[in-house]
Amino acid sequence: MLPKPDYYMFAVQSRDKETMARTGLMRTTHGDIPTPVFIPVGTAGTVKGILHRDLLDDIGAKIILGNTYHLYLRPGTDILKRAGGLHRFMSWELPVLTDSGGYQVFSLADNRKLTDEGALFKSHIDGSSHIFTPENTIDIQRIIGADIMMAFDECTPFPCDYRYAIKSVNLTHSWLERAVRRFHETEPLWSNDQVLFPIVQGSTFDDLRKLSAEFVASAGMEGNAIGGLSVGEPAEEMYRIIEIVNGILPDDKPRYLMGVGTPVNILEAIERGIDMFDCVMPTRNGRNGMLFTSEGIINIRNKKWACDFNPIDPAGPSSVSLYYSKAYLRHLVISGEILGAQIASIHNLAFYLRLLKVAREKIEEGDFKRWKDSMTKKLSERL
Amino acid sequence: MLPKPDYYMFAVQSRDKETMARTGLMRTTHGDIPTPVFIPVGTAGTVKGILHRDLLDDIGAKIILGNTYHLYLRPGTDILKRAGGLHRFMSWELPVLTDSGGYQVFSLADNRKLTDEGALFKSHIDGSSHIFTPENTIDIQRIIGADIMMAFDECTPFPCDYRYAIKSVNLTHSWLERAVRRFHETEPLWSNDQVLFPIVQGSTFDDLRKLSAEFVASAGMEGNAIGGLSVGEPAEEMYRIIEIVNGILPDDKPRYLMGVGTPVNILEAIERGIDMFDCVMPTRNGRNGMLFTSEGIINIRNKKWACDFNPIDPAGPSSVSLYYSKAYLRHLVISGEILGAQIASIHNLAFYLRLLKVAREKIEEGDFKRWKDSMTKKLSERL
Repeated sequence: MLPKPDYYMFAVQSRDKETMARTGLMRTTHGDIPTPVFIPVGTAGTVKGILHRDLLDDIGAKIILGNTYHLYLRPGTDILKRAGGLHRFMSWELPVLTDSGGYQVFSLADNRKLTDEGALFKSHIDGSSHIFTPENTIDIQRIIGADIMMAFDECTPFPCDYRYAIKSVNLTHSWLERAVRRFHETEPLWSNDQVLFPIVQGSTFDDLRKLSAEFVASAGMEGNAIGGLSVGEPAEEMYRIIEIVNGILPDDKPRYLMGVGTPVNILEAIERGIDMFDCVMPTRNGRNGMLFTSEGIINIRNKKWACDFNPIDPAGPSSVSLYYSKAYLRHLVISGEILGAQIASIHNLAFYLRLLKVAREKIEEGDFKRWKDSMTKKLSERL
Repeated sequence: MLPKPDYYMFAVQSRDKETMARTGLMRTTHGDIPTPVFIPVGTAGTVKGILHRDLLDDIGAKIILGNTYHLYLRPGTDILKRAGGLHRFMSWELPVLTDSGGYQVFSLADNRKLTDEGALFKSHIDGSSHIFTPENTIDIQRIIGADIMMAFDECTPFPCDYRYAIKSVNLTHSWLERAVRRFHETEPLWSNDQVLFPIVQGSTFDDLRKLSAEFVASAGMEGNAIGGLSVGEPAEEMYRIIEIVNGILPDDKPRYLMGVGTPVNILEAIERGIDMFDCVMPTRNGRNGMLFTSEGIINIRNKKWACDFNPIDPAGPSSVSLYYSKAYLRHLVISGEILGAQIASIHNLAFYLRLLKVAREKIEEGDFKRWKDSMTKKLSERL
């Protein structure tokens, strides 16, 4: 087999006439990704509870996300380096995106301390001390070999004091300059091309978000991300911020909304010009028994499903959605059986990926807006 | 599709000349089972961590086991009745064997109290009070719809006082008479034939085992089981008891050794004329990181595998054994990731089922004894 070419590109393929929605194709060394795309979260080098073949065949994943924070702590960079990167370590041949560890340092690690240099933290696993900097998170992501790397940022909580938000966005910008410098000074370690996406911050303050979007756009990277949303603010605030930021981020580069969200959040964001999403919701909520179905949202633990022997979802986004009944899945989840988490995770991810597939089709057919408006009601309904 | 015929049969197909090993075919309404067979344990209506399609396609399971105790408590007989039996409830189309609940009442339930009538116990889930009798465990297994049902018995612990063992074996025998009566008085509730296997008890006492084997044989059921072994006694004691019992149990009926065991235990028991096995070892030990491989036994948590990027088992009993590396599986198990339990369970069960497949081939080829002697060393080796 010939070596794969080293390249990355993104091209818009079609545009919705009524909204900012568009379809595109992202090309990486490990494969092509049609956008808008939902990226299953594979925190520690595994999308929890799902075999690779099910990710590929039953869910149709084209890319997965790894968390730099988790992978750095375990298995650690020594093992990842000896394996030849994450793809080889975990036997995953399609693209991988890694976050920078910023969000996890602030949400998971103990005793974190922020300095201009970076973020000091203690491992949530064994309490050992570490530092993440804009530079070493690039180095770590080089070892991981992610097709798409993210710049180290501070993700502000909600609500956030305006003066803290200014300070934070300035810190994130100075970190971005250092990350970009390190990115240009270094090369991929493995046989795939790598790109770096910067992240727009600025909490829910319109002026800070504008400032940040302009700063991020000026970095001239191959794609751009919006962070710090879906952290507790009302959905309308999130949508407003997306509109402001997407009016500034370059239109010919992919726009990635990090950590979002519900199916409705995703359709609203696509309408506003977002191309990429990731979120733990389909897998984490699935493990707890919350299912997104073509008929509405289901809490499978509810007694009303105890004798419902119909398929989990007759629209069958995955084959497990059709094969297993609601009553059986309820029994598994209530009994704390692993298989319940597996089936719910496969179903929910397949539901998300099919939703995005239909969204792409609707954009191409010029029918996105009408479809989206009709879907948002159904998708929010609780059965 | 025509309705399936209602029948059950067992026929010996070939016999080893040097030992008591034999191959056979067990025919049930839900499908044929070549013997010797290993039955994956699906306690609460799920082989823990494994999708049905992987049980069928990657592991090659021909029958699974359900636990009457667990299924009775959850989902319960009301739901199972409304579903039309366990096969329909769990969408499993191949044969199912259920134990009688005896073993679980004594190993899992709280506040158990034995009377001539049956066993009073409190649920380990919610503390509610229940009674299992020879009659109602038949009724429950009729509702479950198991292709092969087991008679309610008392499983004695090891070591066991001789006087207690006599009392216990007499109780088990009187329970057997009542179970057989109930079996003949009742009919299957669903569209499949059901057979009842009695269980030989008698601890490690040769005379009690003989007595029990004769009593069980005289019941004239379609198959017979040996219980109360692999409960802590030395392997040589188990093998001696199997020889004694199998010298008495009818040769034209399948012999089922319950809850056994290691791969070596299984080969030794096949040599002594056993046809059916079940054990939680491949799945339970797999979840804890113990792997049975063609190269020997592996504790995947061991640091020596941290950078072993070779397949879990190059002999590849399942496709996951070849697809994933030891280093990756170690990472998953150490990190407590569900996927680690899934991969280890699929691999171990596939290893067991392939071992039995090869055993059947070796018996048919007349080479069983030599092969078994060469395998027992390799199978016990710890890497």
